[in-house]
Amino acid sequence: MRHTISLLVENKFGVLSRVSGLFSGRGYNIESLSVGETMDPAISQMTIVTSGDERIIEQINKQLNKLIDVIKVTDMIEHDHVEREMVLMKVAPKADRKSEVFELTNIFRGKIIDSSEKTYTIEVTGDEKKIQAFVNLMRPIGIKELVRTGAVAIAREGT
Amino acid sequence: MRHTISLLVENKFGVLSRVSGLFSGRGYNIESLSVGETMDPAISQMTIVTSGDERIIEQINKQLNKLIDVIKVTDMIEHDHVEREMVLMKVAPKADRKSEVFELTNIFRGKIIDSSEKTYTIEVTGDEKKIQAFVNLMRPIGIKELVRTGAVAIAREGT
Repeated sequence: MRHTISLLVENKFGVLSRVSGLFSGRGYNIESLSVGETMDPAISQMTIVTSGDERIIEQINKQLNKLIDVIKVTDMIEHDHVEREMVLMKVAPKADRKSEVFELTNIFRGKIIDSSEKTYTIEVTGDEKKIQAFVNLMRPIGIKELVRTGAVAIAREGT
Repeated sequence: MRHTISLLVENKFGVLSRVSGLFSGRGYNIESLSVGETMDPAISQMTIVTSGDERIIEQINKQLNKLIDVIKVTDMIEHDHVEREMVLMKVAPKADRKSEVFELTNIFRGKIIDSSEKTYTIEVTGDEKKIQAFVNLMRPIGIKELVRTGAVAIAREGT
């Protein structure tokens, strides 16, 4: 099962290595990971998406809690939450497919953030399924480059 | 100086540990990091934001190139590029400041993606400065929670 794990960690050298080492040490892949700053510069926030055997994920959660620089571990599977990621995509459509690029970008509430003679760079946000659908629709039109952030999640109020 | 480094890596166990270990082993902090999938499931894409002494960053770039699972290293400082990140923010404004939340969200072209009786969850994308400005303006209104993806970058065409 897919798990989105949210971590608050001390902003120190090596925390990321230790956290990612916990996963790789068990032969567990990380599907996506984001690390960024919080309002407190001493604390960083990590979001990890992984999937696999429940027993092993439970073990990983326990081990994460034991790491000295980890302040808080939240497995979002236990909470009602919103989850979003962002994709930047550079497309190079043939002249007769340009209008499709604009239409799809509008339908997905994306933004064209840059353009050159032959390309458009588009930003789209949404959950994993929405991003995947956008990628699948744009693929035959001509994706030149694609960069995804990992997912980030926030628990809904009252959960 | 701030560097945004884009990496294509084999999607294998332990790559993330090794890459982040290269930074922490030199006492170098990673400001933000994103790892996500590419169109090829065997290849992942990482974006790392770091800042510091040019000589050491050059060393890190060389070491990254030597790692066996690293396919390509691009230091975006050498390219004209667009860079974006996303923030999810849960705010709990007092009744008389709710309209400010809507106004600021509009001004920053954000989206309110969830709401409860007392809170709104907002999504905003932009470069680091824009995100920081939004956070600074929302702070006095009442930020309850904040999660940022790391930055992602894409080179402009013809550079």
